[in-house]
Amino acid sequence: MQLHNGRSKDGISWEIDNKRISFICDDPEIGNFVYGYDPRVCWIEDRYYVTWCNCYHGPTIGVGYTYDFKEFYQLENAFLPFNRNGVLFPRKIKGKYAILSRPSDNRHTPFGDIFYSESSDICHWGKHRHVMSPRGRWQSTKIGAGPIPIETIEGWLLIYHGVLTSCNGFVYSMGAALLDIDEPWKVLYRTEPYLLSPQELYECVGDTPNVVFPCAALCDAPTGRIAIYYGGADTVTCLAFTQVNELINFIKSNSKV
Amino acid sequence: MQLHNGRSKDGISWEIDNKRISFICDDPEIGNFVYGYDPRVCWIEDRYYVTWCNCYHGPTIGVGYTYDFKEFYQLENAFLPFNRNGVLFPRKIKGKYAILSRPSDNRHTPFGDIFYSESSDICHWGKHRHVMSPRGRWQSTKIGAGPIPIETIEGWLLIYHGVLTSCNGFVYSMGAALLDIDEPWKVLYRTEPYLLSPQELYECVGDTPNVVFPCAALCDAPTGRIAIYYGGADTVTCLAFTQVNELINFIKSNSKV
Amino acid sequence: MQLHNGRSKDGISWEIDNKRISFICDDPEIGNFVYGYDPRVCWIEDRYYVTWCNCYHGPTIGVGYTYDFKEFYQLENAFLPFNRNGVLFPRKIKGKYAILSRPSDNRHTPFGDIFYSESSDICHWGKHRHVMSPRGRWQSTKIGAGPIPIETIEGWLLIYHGVLTSCNGFVYSMGAALLDIDEPWKVLYRTEPYLLSPQELYECVGDTPNVVFPCAALCDAPTGRIAIYYGGADTVTCLAFTQVNELINFIKSNSKV
Amino acid sequence: MQLHNGRSKDGISWEIDNKRISFICDDPEIGNFVYGYDPRVCWIEDRYYVTWCNCYHGPTIGVGYTYDFKEFYQLENAFLPFNRNGVLFPRKIKGKYAILSRPSDNRHTPFGDIFYSESSDICHWGKHRHVMSPRGRWQSTKIGAGPIPIETIEGWLLIYHGVLTSCNGFVYSMGAALLDIDEPWKVLYRTEPYLLSPQELYECVGDTPNVVFPCAALCDAPTGRIAIYYGGADTVTCLAFTQVNELINFIKSNSKV
Amino acid sequence: MQLHNGRSKDGISWEIDNKRISFICDDPEIGNFVYGYDPRVCWIEDRYYVTWCNCYHGPTIGVGYTYDFKEFYQLENAFLPFNRNGVLFPRKIKGKYAILSRPSDNRHTPFGDIFYSESSDICHWGKHRHVMSPRGRWQSTKIGAGPIPIETIEGWLLIYHGVLTSCNGFVYSMGAALLDIDEPWKVLYRTEPYLLSPQELYECVGDTPNVVFPCAALCDAPTGRIAIYYGGADTVTCLAFTQVNELINFIKSNSKV
Amino acid sequence: MQLHNGRSKDGISWEIDNKRISFICDDPEIGNFVYGYDPRVCWIEDRYYVTWCNCYHGPTIGVGYTYDFKEFYQLENAFLPFNRNGVLFPRKIKGKYAILSRPSDNRHTPFGDIFYSESSDICHWGKHRHVMSPRGRWQSTKIGAGPIPIETIEGWLLIYHGVLTSCNGFVYSMGAALLDIDEPWKVLYRTEPYLLSPQELYECVGDTPNVVFPCAALCDAPTGRIAIYYGGADTVTCLAFTQVNELINFIKSNSKV
Repeated sequence: MQLHNGRSKDGISWEIDNKRISFICDDPEIGNFVYGYDPRVCWIEDRYYVTWCNCYHGPTIGVGYTYDFKEFYQLENAFLPFNRNGVLFPRKIKGKYAILSRPSDNRHTPFGDIFYSESSDICHWGKHRHVMSPRGRWQSTKIGAGPIPIETIEGWLLIYHGVLTSCNGFVYSMGAALLDIDEPWKVLYRTEPYLLSPQELYECVGDTPNVVFPCAALCDAPTGRIAIYYGGADTVTCLAFTQVNELINFIKSNSKV
Repeated sequence: MQLHNGRSKDGISWEIDNKRISFICDDPEIGNFVYGYDPRVCWIEDRYYVTWCNCYHGPTIGVGYTYDFKEFYQLENAFLPFNRNGVLFPRKIKGKYAILSRPSDNRHTPFGDIFYSESSDICHWGKHRHVMSPRGRWQSTKIGAGPIPIETIEGWLLIYHGVLTSCNGFVYSMGAALLDIDEPWKVLYRTEPYLLSPQELYECVGDTPNVVFPCAALCDAPTGRIAIYYGGADTVTCLAFTQVNELINFIKSNSKV
Repeated sequence: MQLHNGRSKDGISWEIDNKRISFICDDPEIGNFVYGYDPRVCWIEDRYYVTWCNCYHGPTIGVGYTYDFKEFYQLENAFLPFNRNGVLFPRKIKGKYAILSRPSDNRHTPFGDIFYSESSDICHWGKHRHVMSPRGRWQSTKIGAGPIPIETIEGWLLIYHGVLTSCNGFVYSMGAALLDIDEPWKVLYRTEPYLLSPQELYECVGDTPNVVFPCAALCDAPTGRIAIYYGGADTVTCLAFTQVNELINFIKSNSKV
Repeated sequence: MQLHNGRSKDGISWEIDNKRISFICDDPEIGNFVYGYDPRVCWIEDRYYVTWCNCYHGPTIGVGYTYDFKEFYQLENAFLPFNRNGVLFPRKIKGKYAILSRPSDNRHTPFGDIFYSESSDICHWGKHRHVMSPRGRWQSTKIGAGPIPIETIEGWLLIYHGVLTSCNGFVYSMGAALLDIDEPWKVLYRTEPYLLSPQELYECVGDTPNVVFPCAALCDAPTGRIAIYYGGADTVTCLAFTQVNELINFIKSNSKV
Repeated sequence: MQLHNGRSKDGISWEIDNKRISFICDDPEIGNFVYGYDPRVCWIEDRYYVTWCNCYHGPTIGVGYTYDFKEFYQLENAFLPFNRNGVLFPRKIKGKYAILSRPSDNRHTPFGDIFYSESSDICHWGKHRHVMSPRGRWQSTKIGAGPIPIETIEGWLLIYHGVLTSCNGFVYSMGAALLDIDEPWKVLYRTEPYLLSPQELYECVGDTPNVVFPCAALCDAPTGRIAIYYGGADTVTCLAFTQVNELINFIKSNSKV
Repeated sequence: MQLHNGRSKDGISWEIDNKRISFICDDPEIGNFVYGYDPRVCWIEDRYYVTWCNCYHGPTIGVGYTYDFKEFYQLENAFLPFNRNGVLFPRKIKGKYAILSRPSDNRHTPFGDIFYSESSDICHWGKHRHVMSPRGRWQSTKIGAGPIPIETIEGWLLIYHGVLTSCNGFVYSMGAALLDIDEPWKVLYRTEPYLLSPQELYECVGDTPNVVFPCAALCDAPTGRIAIYYGGADTVTCLAFTQVNELINFIKSNSKV
């Protein structure tokens, strides 16, 4: 489990570097790479920040940045272990960096809520606020933030994954919520049904069966088209499309907060 | 599980208030009391800080302070859940507040290492460093900081608890370590045997059998006498005495790091 | 998980109502719908009875009836939770309503025997008798009644599911037994091998991999053809055919009681 | 685990028969004794009914009666397994026998609510109603009815046990509730604190440490004195006294429903 | 957990060496000491053999010998891990060394039967035979051989421990069996009740509550007196006495094989 | 789960006997067949030895032989239960029969190392040596020997399976190692990546999803071609080819010991 850099002209065909990203880091205690996975990339102000699930005596949220996707710099881990699914907001909120994360345990974690935290320096984090908990059916075991939230006039559009525990293990599906623009720990709307659950063969069969795991979303502002990149069965990367208006309408008309 | 204020003239007989401490807090989201336990009190600069295991969507580290043990003010929780055994250092280290804590899960937590974190404002915390892990026998399941560390010329004297898992549940014992004065995440010495394990009837029988849980230590600098307050069987508060020199010698001559 | 009414001209193409069945019930304590699944329909004397897994502080056996598949009436739950796979017999036995069920727990239940109970008023149930237990291989973890038993000259033909626990979770297969006509808790014959186990892609891949779950059987008396409706991978409804004589012969010649 | 008959002149010194009670039973399927424990005795109309935890393919509620404590007759088990703590009401309610019970699993059962059921013939039971669930602290894992409810002008006085799960296993304490006289599944008052928790050595040390398990209560109507017989550490039988008025006042003034 | 040598003039007061036994061993792979516990000492022909629970990539049966209790020699481990409670017979049977053992797992092992194995050279073992399994109540979870079997005219007298699993963990009691003299895997008699269960405070309270664990028995042939050394609560060594005839009679008259 | 004899002219099309192999055995205690699976066949000196996972009060290593694949003789089980994946070496090493095995528990065993044992008579086994442990990723839960080791000038070529535990259960992959010719418990090289992991539909979907389980390898010495027979999803037998030189080079250049 390593982080690799990739490039694409069309967002579909990708050239992935064979060599993993080697972060430049001042402190070898932090820069010492054990494993990393589930990265998200987020442009804030002047650079691309990367957050990922980073092993430091257990999984926690690694933080780094790059200006050019050539040199990557690693900062302090955002939190103590055990944490996964750390996702930055794409701009400061009330002057503070903001992040969503999902406190976990050191195994497969049969629980998990989404929390909000803020920071002035992207190193020290505090003012932790609870955002939302698992609930019924497809999201009854745990939930976790997916792509970088998309700013809309209805609030922050958060696509997230929810997990249920069948008698044969976890099933990961995709849902969405709208969070308050200024106080994003306040959930305005949240889908009761899922947006997408594992149904295609490439979502149901693979290293981990029955996984739809959203991790990036590209929104084309002029057309409103959103491309959602999601993992299928922990084996392939899939791509689904929607329109921002259509999605917001769906969330609002199928919401239960 | 609530926090109560108490007063004593001799450190042995205590008058405990019947009414729990009601913290003054700006934000009802944080000030809303669910449960609290295992508090530690730490004088830093101008006031008494209190940290405790505080429920905010799971156990985490509550932080507050008082000037007079009459009015108590609650600050932001130091960390995301799940965390227990948050223990402040009694002075800033290199200009930063410093804390030890033990990331946990949402149940009885069959694992647990001690970590170090720092803060400029006692609200946002970062630069998390691993301090020490469980290892053999009496401390093989998990460990957690106990009383406020005592500054000595040999380093920070940390009394901590260690837990083993017998076929009949957890057994809590007491050990000690010496941490580097300037970089307290570096362990200089650590006892291989325990200092005290449950052997007396009041340590072996009670709400939770077989528990010796140290939570406060008063060091009388002139004489070097240390009084260790510890919980017995989660039922009674016990008191053990030692000499700082004797304890340091024991740690150094029975150390395995 | 809800109950829906459906109609078909050929038993293959079905029109399912979008709206779930809304039972008419005298007591809102019972009529309050939480979730329902795995229904069976059974004609007794003058009406169609429906039994299903009904949530009342946990899964138990819901009971209702309809004359016309337009209005449905809900009666008292047959049992205390936790119970699943409640299946009525299609006529009174010695003047009493008779039911099979499988006591369970409040989770995925790694155990489960089939029991028999009787009632004069379809409300109060008693004279509970043990019918059969899990045993070797495909039926080693738990078993549960499937379709309404079919009356034959060899006894009640019971098609049931059996579950084994692989290192990757539960596998559901289908077996059959012949029960004594007058004392149906007495098993005359029971298949040692399964009738059908998950082998087709639609039985192996889906919401719950590796599930063959029989829930209805239509027997065409003149031809002896039996159509067995069974769930595949908790995702699709499948249809298998056999002949009553062929099935009875198979049960008798592959029986171990 | 067997049921024995005992006699006492003062309710303190008891002569227990060496030989277990041998119930007379029409059906050997039911009368076949495997194990029995936790009996309660209840006078209704013309005889003493006995209910106990009876093994019939798992623990369920055995039912019997005696006129003279010499000959005991066994009836059908009240419920399907798995059930424990079946406790009859001492008179018919609206013309029906009434019972409380606690659906369980086939092991140590880390959950459990109290339910109400009724019967015309003490053989077939139905109209199951949920009475109350576990909740915070000493009663957070499961609860179960204790002695035969005592009829008072404030409602049925139900003494029950509650269980918490410490890191060293279950702790059983005693609480109480007042149930509606005509609809006893409606809880009028319920103690938030416990009445009695294991604190004495004979309650904390024994076959099962930390158990206070109430199973019988004798109320002397003229004086209002209640003698509560309860098991200590699954090893000894203990006796506690209270006054009915005092107890009712305590329940009402410490109630949270 | 180490093995220490001890000496006593009266079998009651013991001088235990502070330094653990350091076995002389040809192969450092085997001689490398990790931990050892539960030793038994057995005179066979010309020397004292010692067997113990020895860590070699998990618990297994260490084997050594001494002529003089001054120098101890370590041989090959008898079995692959995971095994505990290896107990030699005090003479060859049909020309072969004979041993009882209890295959285990790498944790607290919630199962366990006693097996018999034989060897020509005390190094290579085979002809493994099942001796006996756990069964009801005090011996329902696992069983394990205790002291070296005592040869009697009724067969090998085997004192063993049995374990039940209460809701608060394991309870260890003591039972006994008589094994066939020439084919000791054949059980002639076996106590249905226990001989001794934890009831005294020193058996119920300590490092592991509720443990009676027999590990040595000295039989004075002229008088028939047997002294049984057993561990109490994994904390103290206790001593119980019986007469060989009395014990054999008890076993035979309370036997269920 | 039974052992069947099969014949093939080309190694691809097989005729499998319908009737299971019935071993001739002197001692009915051992010859009594309960279940058997995962057999390996190994020519040593003058006959074909068969080892398999054989139930004798739990899974252990059954041993038998045949001269002609018509009559099969069963010997003593090599070990006490619980053991699986017993694999003989194809010649004596320093004059002793040699075997690899994997001590297990009585269930799905979430741990497991490979051990080496030796014997003079293929009945009594000893000199047990640890060979290798699970480690990172695809082999992080347990490992077990696969086909009979192939003697090469670089050492014994051992193809083995490794297991990881995903949130949806076990995933079995195939790796390889080179063991010292004279002291095969010494690992010279061991693949850090897997050779083959479940990726094809017939490896991912079936009775146990995500299983690649190697159990036989035929090496054609003149050409160096190796045919590896492996189980796919516990449902089909698959066949993969490699060259011995290519495989050795891969192991050596991707090794981490």
